[in-house]
Parts: sequence; structure tokens; C-alpha cells
Amino acid sequence: MRTTNACSTDVQSIMGNQMQTLLLKKEEVRKLISMKEVIGTVEEAYKAFSSKRVMQPGYIGMHLPPPRGEIDFKLGYYMNNEVISMKASSGGFPDNPRLYGVPSGMGTVLLFDARTCALICVMDGSLLTGLRTGASGAVSVKVLARKNAKTIASIGTGQQARMQIRAIREVMDIGSIHAWSRTADTLVSYKADIEREFGIPVILANSAKEAVEQADILITTTRGKGPVVQSDWVRPGTHIIAIGTDQQGKQELQPDIFRNAKIVNDSLEQCCEKGETWHPLNEQIITRNDIHGEIGEILLSKKPGRENDEEITIFDSTGMAIQDNTASAKIYQNALDNKVGTFFEFIE
Amino acid sequence: MRTTNACSTDVQSIMGNQMQTLLLKKEEVRKLISMKEVIGTVEEAYKAFSSKRVMQPGYIGMHLPPPRGEIDFKLGYYMNNEVISMKASSGGFPDNPRLYGVPSGMGTVLLFDARTCALICVMDGSLLTGLRTGASGAVSVKVLARKNAKTIASIGTGQQARMQIRAIREVMDIGSIHAWSRTADTLVSYKADIEREFGIPVILANSAKEAVEQADILITTTRGKGPVVQSDWVRPGTHIIAIGTDQQGKQELQPDIFRNAKIVNDSLEQCCEKGETWHPLNEQIITRNDIHGEIGEILLSKKPGRENDEEITIFDSTGMAIQDNTASAKIYQNALDNKVGTFFEFIE
Repeated sequence: MRTTNACSTDVQSIMGNQMQTLLLKKEEVRKLISMKEVIGTVEEAYKAFSSKRVMQPGYIGMHLPPPRGEIDFKLGYYMNNEVISMKASSGGFPDNPRLYGVPSGMGTVLLFDARTCALICVMDGSLLTGLRTGASGAVSVKVLARKNAKTIASIGTGQQARMQIRAIREVMDIGSIHAWSRTADTLVSYKADIEREFGIPVILANSAKEAVEQADILITTTRGKGPVVQSDWVRPGTHIIAIGTDQQGKQELQPDIFRNAKIVNDSLEQCCEKGETWHPLNEQIITRNDIHGEIGEILLSKKPGRENDEEITIFDSTGMAIQDNTASAKIYQNALDNKVGTFFEFIE
Repeated sequence: MRTTNACSTDVQSIMGNQMQTLLLKKEEVRKLISMKEVIGTVEEAYKAFSSKRVMQPGYIGMHLPPPRGEIDFKLGYYMNNEVISMKASSGGFPDNPRLYGVPSGMGTVLLFDARTCALICVMDGSLLTGLRTGASGAVSVKVLARKNAKTIASIGTGQQARMQIRAIREVMDIGSIHAWSRTADTLVSYKADIEREFGIPVILANSAKEAVEQADILITTTRGKGPVVQSDWVRPGTHIIAIGTDQQGKQELQPDIFRNAKIVNDSLEQCCEKGETWHPLNEQIITRNDIHGEIGEILLSKKPGRENDEEITIFDSTGMAIQDNTASAKIYQNALDNKVGTFFEFIE
């Protein structure tokens, strides 16, 4: 049986006892990883993906009969850490809190030691998607936003909009946030939360246009079904983080914005199939050749990031299983290092 | 929060507390369900499948770099018990016992309450596939074997060959077993194990032909890559249980056997794509119209089972997620009823 090496981060260290499964609760997961660490793991994930060091089979999911939502299962294997992750994620169960006392969406992550396929960890996965998606925007800021960027426009003011700020403030100084939402209530609570938690002034915009026109960095997290941002609102030099569109039928940006922008994807395949990038492709505003590349290629210095202060850059983030893998493997490793969690022997 | 009703088997009773997840170890799972119960759950699964009361998205899996094997993930939702099951199954890791002290194949089952997608159970799934596959043959014996069947031929003498006998003896009196295997060692231990455990005499055949010619019921569990049973060896009235072929590239029966047989599938779609039934279809010995139907249709009395003592019947079993669902949901229910297992709160 292996013992844990608390310092090194190589393959050997991450593995615990093959016969023991570590159980991690939601509150433990919350304390086991910092946003700074999540950003590091997402950066690693993007590099790994663009280096072909991962396996990510297509996910499986099910839509339950209405008014229930959906559950899906995403599988990722990373050859460097020798961890296979499986994340089950549910969402869209509006009756859960009232009728059953549980959140409307939940998650579970299983980690397997890829050398044996032993189950080494079961952790609550409710926080993971939010964290690693928040980190994705921050990673893009490092290589695609202007160095002198100060002002953020946030179109959408829900949980993920907050998470984007939480992550981006780790990689730049945010001067102010111009926020807009369809619903006035969430806008007001977003302002209160952000100002209290981070001390960043939030200006409530009267329209999406008013917010976007101020932006050095524009974040869209609405999961909308049609464009909310128009092309002529976007100033030269803006970096756009397009988060909301991760499946067919969703859209946030007028496709014309892509015409002269530097387009960067997390996964070319996914973004062209179901990301924001699908729309301009579908309307033949761009071809696949007009896509600059994957963010992993930029992080690996295979392709340039931002090249001047005038270009508009777009990062289309659809989310990948390998982000779940590297982030949850880090949580697991931190738990072993800090002796957090409960061991359980499913097999003896 | 719900409390458990120990007697009824309806939707309400199977659900525990939505905030608590029941953990079940391998040894607990082993004691929590009898083969008779597994047979009942597999019968229910077949009926549910042919009644369109299930959702079973295509499975996802990965082949690890050699000499490692594979891991796959199968998802099933059964509308009657309102349980979603996800089974992770690994196999083919020859170095596991020697280098890591774990079995060469393992399994984990997650159960979700389909009303909320709360994680209600994590159980070891190492035994499940063997049990529910064993039960599949027994279910077919009930509706497809001759009532006066006594003699079994077992082509293949591994773990699943034993499991078939363990299940079939629950539904008929087995007079004797004529066994054959490519490897003499496993043949001898099979005889010893079966005679000790069940008191059924095992006759070691000198050839596959010698065994098959004696059979009222023929079981093939070799997972072979080419036909081991020839058409002219099979007597009229034989019932064939074809277990070994569950993916492209595997084959156990000479396709000609299908020509005048009553062909029954667990899932028409799966058997035609990757079961033993694929071979005669591929060689144009039969068309899809020559397939009698699914075993669920017979169990639901929508189609006849065996109609006379002369016909040769073939049950092609490829295995379905819904079998994992009904069997593991029963294990979970038995655990709640008998207060077995350990509760863990992943969310609080």
C-alpha cells in the first residue's frame, strides 16, 4: 500500500491507499481549495487538453419529466495525474427546496486511480462546476485581456456572474463593474454582495448597452436564448468572456461581434458544436479557419494571445470534463495532505 | 424528510432521507440480496424495458493504455421505482492483485432519487454485473427452456458459468452438467466447485461437441472471438443461453444455428448491433424480421415463449443498465429495511 507524500505533486503522491475511498462533504470541499488553486488547475486542464494528454468521451445525460430538470455525467482521464474523474451534475429541479429540502441542483464526483480503476474518492460536486467555470474566465484574462484593463461589464448577475468576479480579481485589479440584468432584484443583490465581499464598486446600468460600452472586459453569464449584446456596443480592445452558451439553443452575443474578433475556444470541437461560436459559423459570418485557436495552445505558447490594445478578443467557454478532473484531483490531494475527510472501505 | 416504510415496494418506500447517502460495502451487498431476488429484479427490468418505462442512454467508457483494461459507465432510469442508477465497471487490469492488492475488476454504483437527483446510495458494484447476468439466463429458462429439461451443457467454466448455474437452479432441477473449457485447469476446478456447492454432478467433456450433444440447455460464457459451437451439434428442443458476446468482435455460436431457431434478445437494438445476433444478420443468414422478439415481450405475454418441444430457442443476453437499476435498487431497499450500511451526509 502507498503512503502519502505531502509535498510532491507527481503521480505517486496523489494516490492514497487503493482499498480506501476518501469521502468529502460539501463543507470540506469548500475549505479544501482556494480560487487561486482552481485557476491553476483550470490552466493545467487547458494545457493538458491541447497537448492531447486527456481522454474525454462524450457525456451522457437524461432529461427527467417536467417540472424536473436534467442530470448529466462527464468523464475525464488525465494521463499526468493518472486520475479518472466522473462528475454527476443535476440542475433545474425547482421543487427541490420546498418539497424535499435539498438544492435545485447537486453534484457528485468520483475519482478513480487510473492505474487500477480503484475508487479513491467520492466528493460532493455541488461547488465544482461553479468554481472551475469561474476560473476559466480568469485564465482567459491572463492571456487575452489588455494589461491596462480596469472596468468590467457583467451581463447577468447570478451565481456564476459573482464567481467570475471572485476569480478575475485573483489575476487583475478590478476598478469597477458595470452590471446589468433583466431582473432588477438580482441586480440589486449582486451589487450589495460584490461590494460587501470584494469592495469593488458596482454601477447599475440602465441597459445592457450602457454596461457594455464601459467595458474593458465583458462577461456574459445569462444562459440566454437570444443575443443580448450587440456588435456596435463593443469597444475596440474589449475582451469578451462568453460563459452562458454551452448547448444548442442558447445565445448571448450578436454573431456579428465575431466578424473581426480574435476567437479563442476552450475546445474547438465543443464550441463549434454547441458554444457561442456555433452561431457565427451557422450564419456563415465566420468559417472554422477564422477561429484563432484553443486557449490551451496560447497557454502552451503555440499561438499568441492578445497582440495589441485594439483587437477584440472572445473567449468561448463551454466547459470540459478535464477541468473537473484537475480541480477535483487537487481537492483530493489537499484533503490527503491536510488529513481532511472520512475514509471508507467499500471493498476489504 | 421521509421515513422508510419497511413493507411496501412502491415509489415512496424506496426513498430514504434526501440529505443522507447510504454507503454499502461489498460484503454488505453480498448478504443483502438472494439470487432468487436478483432473478425477480431482472425479470422486472426486462418487462420495464419492453414497456418503455426506462431511459438508458448509450454508455460511455474508456480503454486505458495497455496492459491496463477498461472502465465504463452505464446509466439507467426506471420510472416505476423513480431511481436513477449509474454503474461504473472496470475490468482487465491483470497487474492489480500483484502490484496493488486490489481485484482486476471493480465496480461502483450510485443511486439517485429521480424526483430530486439527490444521491441516496453509493454501493460497491463488484458483484452486481455477475449476479444480474447470471439471473438473465434463469429468466430465459422460465419461458424458453423445455419443461422437462434436465441436462445442461456449459461451454466456458469461469465465474459467469458458475453464476449461471447458481441462478438456473433456482428455477429448475438440474440433473447434470456437461462442461467443457479450452483450459483443463479451470474445468477441473469448476467441477469441484459446482459439485461441492450445489451437489450437481458435473461430467467433464472431451470436446465442446460432446457437451453440446447432451444439452437440453446450452450455456455459452466463453467471451470467445470465434464460434465454438457448431450448428449440427445442437439437438432439437435445445435452449441456448448466449452470454459471452456483448460487443463487436466477440462470437460463440456458428451463425447457422440461428437459421431455424426462435431468436430472443434482451434488447433488439443492442443484440443486433453487438450481440451474438449480429453475426447471422451480418452474414445474411437471418433478417431482423426473423427475430422473435425481446424477452420482455414474452414476460409481458405480448409474444409466446417456447411453443413445442422441438424448437431450438436462443436467448441473446448483452446486458442492460436497467438490470443494474432494478437489482441495485432492491439491494438499497433491503439495506434500508434491515438497517444495514452506513449513512453519510455529503451535503448538510
